[in-house]
This record gives sequence, C-alpha cells and structure tokens, in this order.
Amino acid sequence: MNRPDRPIRVALAGCGAVGGALLSRLTAGDRLGGRPVEVVRVLVRRPTAARATTIPEGLATADLQSFLATPADVVVEVIGGVTTAHEIARHVLGRGGRLVTANKSLLAAHGPALSDLAAASGGWLGFEAAVAGGVPVIRTLRHALAGQPILGFRGILNGTANYILSRVETNTSYAGALAEARQNGLAEADPRRDLDGRDVADKLAVLAWVTWGTRPEALEVQRRGLTRSTIGQARRLAGSGQRVRLIGECHRVADRVVATVGPQHVAADSPFGQTVAEGNRLEIDLGWGAPIGLSGPGAGGGPTAAAIWGDLLDAVAA
Amino acid sequence: MNRPDRPIRVALAGCGAVGGALLSRLTAGDRLGGRPVEVVRVLVRRPTAARATTIPEGLATADLQSFLATPADVVVEVIGGVTTAHEIARHVLGRGGRLVTANKSLLAAHGPALSDLAAASGGWLGFEAAVAGGVPVIRTLRHALAGQPILGFRGILNGTANYILSRVETNTSYAGALAEARQNGLAEADPRRDLDGRDVADKLAVLAWVTWGTRPEALEVQRRGLTRSTIGQARRLAGSGQRVRLIGECHRVADRVVATVGPQHVAADSPFGQTVAEGNRLEIDLGWGAPIGLSGPGAGGGPTAAAIWGDLLDAVAA
Repeated sequence: MNRPDRPIRVALAGCGAVGGALLSRLTAGDRLGGRPVEVVRVLVRRPTAARATTIPEGLATADLQSFLATPADVVVEVIGGVTTAHEIARHVLGRGGRLVTANKSLLAAHGPALSDLAAASGGWLGFEAAVAGGVPVIRTLRHALAGQPILGFRGILNGTANYILSRVETNTSYAGALAEARQNGLAEADPRRDLDGRDVADKLAVLAWVTWGTRPEALEVQRRGLTRSTIGQARRLAGSGQRVRLIGECHRVADRVVATVGPQHVAADSPFGQTVAEGNRLEIDLGWGAPIGLSGPGAGGGPTAAAIWGDLLDAVAA
Repeated sequence: MNRPDRPIRVALAGCGAVGGALLSRLTAGDRLGGRPVEVVRVLVRRPTAARATTIPEGLATADLQSFLATPADVVVEVIGGVTTAHEIARHVLGRGGRLVTANKSLLAAHGPALSDLAAASGGWLGFEAAVAGGVPVIRTLRHALAGQPILGFRGILNGTANYILSRVETNTSYAGALAEARQNGLAEADPRRDLDGRDVADKLAVLAWVTWGTRPEALEVQRRGLTRSTIGQARRLAGSGQRVRLIGECHRVADRVVATVGPQHVAADSPFGQTVAEGNRLEIDLGWGAPIGLSGPGAGGGPTAAAIWGDLLDAVAA
C-alpha cells in the first residue's frame, strides 16, 4: 500500500449507526496516512433502504460474494453477529488482507484463530472499536500499559444497559429509555444481549485475551443480567446515594482468570456511579493504591467510527 | 540490541523516589523484551548517602563525565532540573543512543531540539513518565487517539498540589499535608514549581507538543498558582459540594493553542472533585458529548517507574 497517490480502497460491510457514521467520514475527503480514500463497496441487507447516511450511487450490494470479490485495501466489518462476519473475516484474512472489525462476538468466538490466520497469511486485524466505542481500551491494555503486570480490570462496558439504568433513575420508564437508546443509535436491533450480560461477557473475553493471552472462547463468565427487578431497584435507589450499574470484571487468580458480569450497587458519587447514559468506564488494577481509569463515550456512531478510523490509520501504515 | 543473551545495560541518572523504585525493579531479575537487565552506572549527587533502595556496590558515581563514558544501551534520566539533564540528553542522543526521561522541564524547554537530534543521529527518546506518572497520557495522545481531531484537554496534572488540596479538605494543615506528600515521595525537593503552576505549565507544553506539534518552548501559559488564600478556600469549602482543584487546560482556537493553569471550583461529585491525593486526571475533548477521561496515580515512585519501564520496553524494541 505504498504508492502515495493511489487512494486507499475501503470496502464496508454494514451501514447501521456505526457504519453510517464511518461512511460519512470516509466520503468527507479526509485523508488516511496522507492518501485519499475511496469507498469501493458497501454490503447491506437492503441496498435501497432509506438511511441517515446515503450510500454513494452503485456501491451498495446485498450480495456477499460480490462484496468479497471487490478489490479493496482494507475491509471494515460492522454488521455484527457471527456467521456472515466470520465468513468475511476468514476470506479477507485468508488472502492476506487487512480487516478492521468492531465485532466483539466474532472475536470472542474466533479471535485467536483469526489472529493466527492473519499472522500466517501476512494479513492484518484491528479491533479497537470492538470494546468501549471511542475509549481506547484495547490499545491501552495492549500497548500503553505493555510491560505492566495487570492484575485485573472492571468496567461498565455496555452503553445500552447503562443508558437504561441511568435514565430510569430520572424516572423515565424502561420502555421509554430503551426507545431513546435506539433513537440515539446506541442499542442493537435486538437489545437482549446488551441487557442479559452476554455482550459484556464477550467484551471481557476480548479484553482478557489482549491482556493475558487467555483464549476468549474458553473463558467462563459468571453472568447475571438486568432483570425487571434490577431495573425497579435502580429506579427506587434514585436519590439514595446508591446506584445500580452493570459491571463486568476479570481478575487473575493464580493462573486462572475469574470473570463475572452482573448488576452491582455503587456509590452515586463514585466514578462508576457518575458514569451515565452511554458512558463506558474501565478500571485497570496494576496493584497500585488506585487503578488506572479510562472513560468516555462507549457506544454511538461517532465515537465508534472514530475508533475504526484509528485502526484504518494503523492498517494503512502496516 | 538484538543479541538475545547479552543483558540490556541501563545507566540511571538520579536515585530519588522514582529512580529508587526503578532501580529496585531493574535489579529484581525482571527481563526487558526477553533479555536480562544490567544496571551499569547510577549518577547521584552523594554516592554514599543512605537510600531506601541501595545502589549496588561500585555503581554509584557523582561524576557526570564518568557516567556519560559508561557504555550503556539505554540511559534513564530522572534527576529533574534542566542543566545537567540537558547535557545528558544531548550527549546520549547526539551519539545515537536511547534516552528515557521523566523530565517535563527539560522537554518543555528543549523537546523538539532533542527529538530532532534523535532523528538525525538514529537515537531514541521516550518520555511517557514526564506527565501524569503511571497514567499513559502521552501514549494515548500520540498513538491511541492518533487520527482523531483533538480539540483540547484539561486535567489535574500535579500530584503534590492535588494532595495538599484534598488533604486540607479533611482539616489537615497545609504544612502537615506538604510533609505527608514529601514523606510519600510525591513532592519535589522544592515544591514551589508544583504549587505555583509552573510544573503544570511545563506538562501542558509537552502535551500540546505531542498533540498538535506546537513548539513547547513557545507556548504561552496563563498561569495562577495555589496561594494561601486558595488553600484557605479549599478548606472552607469542605462539605459544601464544591472543591478547589489546580487545573491546566489547552484548547485549540483557530490555529492557536490557548493554555491556562489555575485553581478552579469543581463539584465535589464530579470526576475532578473525586480526584484526590496524588491522583491525576486528563479529559480529552474530541468534540463528542463527553470527553475521554484518563485517571490514576499521577506521582510516586512505583507508578512513575512503571511508566519508565514501558518506555524501556519500547527502547529495547526500537
């Protein structure tokens, strides 16, 4: 990829909240590592559907094979789910291509195999956007804290669940809060994985993998989700000095990684209690008196697309 | 540096709280990038003084020329101040060597010139530990958020000032709080630069440099420090829901960078209000609804030495 004038050809799989925000940036004239950007193909289920971001004429396709056959320098996968995403990932990495994905389920199920495939083929795999949206938790665990013995981490890692918990505190109904989250492009089409802790469990598996090399598909996560009763509790606690947050944690105990996700009571004025709406927060325990904290917008098109943009820059430089 | 069995030879300039913590780790048998570590020389003012970390027999010297003449793969500078540190930096980088420094004053005064010198000679310069101790703010601004348009940042960047402000809230006297900070290895020998905002101004200059390429020595920082009256105010506000914090900020306005440091009133339950003792916190404005926040131990031997260790890993890999 080092002819300086040729555009970077990007193929984009998925054009929801994140894909649409990314498409806007990809077509706005910004350069990537000094090179112009050309979107060559956009894979969507319904090519003619109305969208917040219009797909340029002739680029949308619903046909996976035609998408995969389009020559591209980088493929970005933001369709979510595992089946089609896995097919795209194996195809791109198998031919030595560069793949950027925001797909935590894919990585939790197949991360090491895809990473091995990329290493074997000369391909490249980036996934900063898979956890915590715009907050660079993967880069921090992988690079910024490299060489530090990380004992564990805990965090608010699901924007939808946190949005609902912090909105019901202000007396919004559960249904109203969920509708708002959807309207703001935060919730998945099916929010069950967000609310029952499976989404957080996938993210813990990805973080444990990048931190300790633990195989994500083998990580057992003790999981409790948000229930009607937890949400009622979150509402009743409003003003009490306590709040409910859905918190995921991993700790290294001897040679094992112990992982849990579930609702916890936190002090309202604590950093977790103060994490509202789609905010995410990760606290990393390095055995010091206080953890390293990372916080910011953990979901939503703009921040997640920004994380993907950072991976695109790395992909172009790789 | 790629003969796998030969130890990495580290020369250490300075053996105070940070240097001592680093020396402990360097002599504990930990490997650096898979290679053993050998401390070859320690530059100190008084070689025979009693220290928390004992310098191995025969390594301590007060003679700068003898220190510089000792063959080393990496030189670590944690003596602080500008004159001797600058001489060490120019010597090491001028000969194409690798230098890790925690010295914000040095970088604020000479960072770009030293960086150019390293580039010209094939040397290497790392300075993660210069700002915010164990919190990886430099790596985040330089790498983790690369490609994001950073509009500005604001933070609590001086552990000593924050220690004093948060201790007087609990009715400790100013002198008692300063003595505690010193005892915990947080305050410099001369804490005036910590309290009058010059230390924060240097850090802002370094952060603006890594963020926007602004020449640090040319950055004008509007500066107010902590006074007897600010500290009295911090004490009187205890329990009021408001707190005083020493906050530095940089914002890009048109093509200029506007930088200020001074005491500000913050809400007690806000992330800045909740930053106590030697905690540091940086909020980075990317134009989203909420900033990216980074927090953690901003001073003290262990966390700062850990940041230096990360730079040593990069130096060995460079």
